[in-house]
Amino acid sequence: MSVTYFYDGIKKNNPEMQKEISATIITIGNELLIGQVVDTNSAFMSKVLNKTGVVVKRKIAIADNMAEIKKALDAEINQVQIILITGGLGPTSDDVTKQTLCTYFKSEMVVNKRALQHVKNLYEKVYKKSLNPVNLKQAEVPAACKVILNKRGSAPCMQFEKGRSMIFSLPGVPYEMEGLMPDIIGVIRQRFQLPKVIHHTLVTSGIGESELAAILKDFEKEIGPKAELAYLPGLGVLRLRLSATVMGREEEDRLRRQFQKLKKLAGDYLISTDDTPVEEIIGKMLNKKKKTIATAESCTGGFIASMITSVSGASDYFPGSVVSYSNNIKMTVLGVKASTLKKHGAVSEEVVREMLKGIVKRMKSDYGVAVSGIMGPGGGSAQKPVGTVWVAVGSARKVVTKKFHFRFDRRRNIQSTAIRALYLLKSFLEEA
Amino acid sequence: MSVTYFYDGIKKNNPEMQKEISATIITIGNELLIGQVVDTNSAFMSKVLNKTGVVVKRKIAIADNMAEIKKALDAEINQVQIILITGGLGPTSDDVTKQTLCTYFKSEMVVNKRALQHVKNLYEKVYKKSLNPVNLKQAEVPAACKVILNKRGSAPCMQFEKGRSMIFSLPGVPYEMEGLMPDIIGVIRQRFQLPKVIHHTLVTSGIGESELAAILKDFEKEIGPKAELAYLPGLGVLRLRLSATVMGREEEDRLRRQFQKLKKLAGDYLISTDDTPVEEIIGKMLNKKKKTIATAESCTGGFIASMITSVSGASDYFPGSVVSYSNNIKMTVLGVKASTLKKHGAVSEEVVREMLKGIVKRMKSDYGVAVSGIMGPGGGSAQKPVGTVWVAVGSARKVVTKKFHFRFDRRRNIQSTAIRALYLLKSFLEEA
Repeated sequence: MSVTYFYDGIKKNNPEMQKEISATIITIGNELLIGQVVDTNSAFMSKVLNKTGVVVKRKIAIADNMAEIKKALDAEINQVQIILITGGLGPTSDDVTKQTLCTYFKSEMVVNKRALQHVKNLYEKVYKKSLNPVNLKQAEVPAACKVILNKRGSAPCMQFEKGRSMIFSLPGVPYEMEGLMPDIIGVIRQRFQLPKVIHHTLVTSGIGESELAAILKDFEKEIGPKAELAYLPGLGVLRLRLSATVMGREEEDRLRRQFQKLKKLAGDYLISTDDTPVEEIIGKMLNKKKKTIATAESCTGGFIASMITSVSGASDYFPGSVVSYSNNIKMTVLGVKASTLKKHGAVSEEVVREMLKGIVKRMKSDYGVAVSGIMGPGGGSAQKPVGTVWVAVGSARKVVTKKFHFRFDRRRNIQSTAIRALYLLKSFLEEA
Repeated sequence: MSVTYFYDGIKKNNPEMQKEISATIITIGNELLIGQVVDTNSAFMSKVLNKTGVVVKRKIAIADNMAEIKKALDAEINQVQIILITGGLGPTSDDVTKQTLCTYFKSEMVVNKRALQHVKNLYEKVYKKSLNPVNLKQAEVPAACKVILNKRGSAPCMQFEKGRSMIFSLPGVPYEMEGLMPDIIGVIRQRFQLPKVIHHTLVTSGIGESELAAILKDFEKEIGPKAELAYLPGLGVLRLRLSATVMGREEEDRLRRQFQKLKKLAGDYLISTDDTPVEEIIGKMLNKKKKTIATAESCTGGFIASMITSVSGASDYFPGSVVSYSNNIKMTVLGVKASTLKKHGAVSEEVVREMLKGIVKRMKSDYGVAVSGIMGPGGGSAQKPVGTVWVAVGSARKVVTKKFHFRFDRRRNIQSTAIRALYLLKSFLEEA
């Protein structure tokens, strides 16, 4: 099948975009609409699709309800080439998606042999539990679909076609959905010739969106309509993403030159051109140097340690951490002097310096991070308002300290502190 | 204005539902469609609306693009009474929402005096920075809207009306959006008589969705069409939510009786009937008992401590924590014996017992939690596969241990371990 078949009627008036393959993601589940669950699935799917060169046009969250599912499909079919549906496939009676798809595609329910064998295997060999009739229902699918087996669970992925659209229905359990995405991308790649979408991202800090926009006003005019600059406020940082759909080497080079210019314009506010999570960057640096890091945390309460250990293999460079929430523990476990606490207070440059020395000694690590601050909502004063944080990074021999002021709620203050502390550590490691 | 005005044509054929006030949430931002950002805003908004008695029908994520915004508004206006739009209001040129709304509502841009005064105040008094022309643009709004000032930032909320719908446009910065929601709810409450939506939630563990569904098959038939039972798989737990829109005391009582029955049916799998985050429940229990807790964490790397300290006021009952990622730190800081580690391995009942005794002593706390496990993807063996975790909770005098097996990816294994450990602690505290 030729790719152009799918372009008919889609942005035909814009030759730049004719090669665009677009998608809609439909997430199904009442829990999304009452806010009980944050939808991480569609973000994961978007990321994977985007990397593959598929443009996600819309994401729609609806109830697990026949009328809503039909309405959403009616609106999207023929508008995009790819529709991914996630959720509503559980074996329980609050999940009506499979039956709805069966009716929608004028099909009938059949037992799929491969799916049945898979469910049996899963229960007998992996879960070591006996099958009940509800489990067996997972092997039933509309006759009109192709089945893609779900290695991580019992509900299979179902692939349908209608008009100009391919429709994939996936389970809503993140772990299972994530395991199915490579198979779906394989099917999409077989069908479509995909363009290359390139994103260059840089991370800034210490400047707001509108101030940075004022600096970049001329740059934004210069890059023209082919590239796009996005401002992405994050935790304590502001990301800039320069994107373009490139058709060849020349366009790719142009985008790279534009990004070089952007870096220069960001000047001192630039803290990284690597959009990899900072905890992963640090992990790689420490592995390469064969050095270790430990954390001494007051206000972040273990959040920095949990970021570091979210990276697989962290045990190679992370011996451990002390969360010294009380002043007493700062003294007894980390060796902060009572006189320092009394003279300067727990949120002070002097205390984070002593916490850092203490943790490096206690954990016998090469480097350390120490933080102390007031995360709110209570605990602030005129001299040290909520959001005041002192951070120290360094080694037994050399320590760098920095004071921050965050003005968010408790959760964001904690996360922002952790991220800025790790970026400070990254700079230190680059120079060490 | 009478409420019934808004019901015309909306589910008129279903008298049960006539009093339903419904909403659509439209989130705007290219970063959502490429998966760079997980949308937490719409979950927050849904939760607030749901609590108020407004039913969220659909959530739609679209690009910051005129055509897409118009298309979404065309599709939703008159379908729901309330439309909340978030995002796309930044002062930079990748944000086109405000201009689009101005055109859509056939209005013209004007400087709003209150908004201008607010922006000036914010920059001069709070940020202590000088205003630039980009900031000033935040005070420009379509003449057709009412302005609701944003106490937490410079972009105001804009309120429009069209057909049977009220449309609110809010900034996408979570902190600012969250600050505006109470004002918006105030406006909605003035306009509509809202029904009462009641949810009863219980938390189970140790049983899968399909097995629990088999147990609850008859119960689901019994509750009839007025109530709804939802299965919500979470981290290491499975929530059951029984919901109904109730019109009076009698219906409220009936739902409560049904929930009592559900609790009985859940039997030993029931671990909590309180849907409050477990870290908050524990905080309240410890405050009441005037006792303290400390954590000794290996595989969770500080995640349990960071959950405990995410609760404001945790310093009253949390002195601190030791993350003993390496065996060496287990010995030197927590006092785990070398012989125990050698004989039983780091992931063993004996080691978590010694970690618990060590942390309680080190932190001088009343209670402790200790965990050690293999979170993957590496590190598993035939005897101790990835997902094996030992947890100990207790005091210097009494310790309870439990072994878990999780079968997720690293991130979910860590989160599941932390949640199950805290629920185990909760049970211990209930009996202590």
